Formats: sequence, structure tokens, C-alpha cells
Amino acid sequence: METAEVAEAFTALLKAGRFDEAAMRFWAQELATYEAAPGDFAEVHGRDAAFAKAKWWYENHDVHSTVVEGPWVNGNHFLCRMTIDVTPKGGQRRRMEEHVLYTVRDGRIVEERYFY
Amino acid sequence: METAEVAEAFTALLKAGRFDEAAMRFWAQELATYEAAPGDFAEVHGRDAAFAKAKWWYENHDVHSTVVEGPWVNGNHFLCRMTIDVTPKGGQRRRMEEHVLYTVRDGRIVEERYFY
Repeated sequence: METAEVAEAFTALLKAGRFDEAAMRFWAQELATYEAAPGDFAEVHGRDAAFAKAKWWYENHDVHSTVVEGPWVNGNHFLCRMTIDVTPKGGQRRRMEEHVLYTVRDGRIVEERYFY
Repeated sequence: METAEVAEAFTALLKAGRFDEAAMRFWAQELATYEAAPGDFAEVHGRDAAFAKAKWWYENHDVHSTVVEGPWVNGNHFLCRMTIDVTPKGGQRRRMEEHVLYTVRDGRIVEERYFY
């Protein structure tokens, strides 16, 4: 699959709320994720570690809704914008906005880089 | 300068409408720019070629206003969102939205990648 096809298919799953399915289908084994802030999950290498990070996120946040915009494609990269209505466990409900830059190789996502 | 400092200073100049000054100050000699669409300026290498591209843009578009949001920083990258109220010469006035991903090395911008 070309980057544009991966971008469309992956983002369509996100927009349908099928986040796990999107990850299962498109995350490469060698996926690396880069948060913009320090912490235990600032930098994660490997699909298993990325699933552990996602599990931590869902265990520690009540996500009320997510609006996904994009994808916008350039070369082997694509960009999405997420607006997340979320309550961190024990915290205040808030609206998070972030952009995610994806890098594609051989039809799979090999890098996610977060901007917020 | 660290990436965050470059991002803040460069974006502050853009927000002040000082686009030429931002470019003069922060574009590396080896700057490369990557548009998301084909064309004469789809891929440009070198600061002089990037200035030629910018000159072409301003000669062929009447820019009424530009709103710049960001920067959002991650590693040696930062991201901005531009909303441009523009009339292409001989065309219809329209509102363009784009994201620009910047890559920084040694205190200068070495890559601009456009998403729209």
C-alpha cells in the first residue's frame, strides 16, 4: 500500500472509533512513538511497548469523545489532528488538542510523533 | 539555539507578518522544502531556490491575511498551522489551511514539509 492508502484506511478506522483495530492492522513491529513531553512513555520502541502505552492511557483516562481530522499526506508521512474530550483519572475534564505525524514504510506505520 | 528557541523566535516573526526576516534569519543554506503536490516547486533544495519559490508565490498570490498557530515542538521538529486568506492571480479568493513541519539542525531550519 502507498502512504496515501495507508493514511486513508488508518484514519477511517480512527474516525470510526476503531483505534485498536487501526493499531493492530497498521502498526509495524518496529513502531517507535515519540511524545513531546518527558515521562515513562516519552519514547517507546516496538509494537508491544506501544500497546502497553495505549493500555496505560485507557486505564488512566476516561475518553468521552475524539474528533479526528485529516489525513494530510506528504511523501511517506501523513498528519492528523485530534481533539479529545477526556477526564484523567482523579483529574478535571478537559479538551486536548494534538497533532500526530505518522511515518509509513512498506505499508505499515513505523513512527508516530506527537505535537501538543 | 535549541529547537524550542528556534521555534518560538521563528514563529513570533511569522505571527508579526515578518516572513522575509524569519526566512533570512533561520533558513539554513541547505534548506529543503517539500510540497504535498506536484509542480515546479514540489521539491526545492537550497536557500536560494527557496527564496525563488517564495518570490514566485508572492508574485502570483495576493495574500490578504495569515493566521499562524503553534509552534508545537517535538525533538528537533516543530509544527505550525497556517490559515491564509488569499486570492491567486486571476483566481477566486479562498481560505487555505496548511500545516508546516519544520526540522531544525544547529539552530537553523533545514527542512520544511507542507501538509494540506
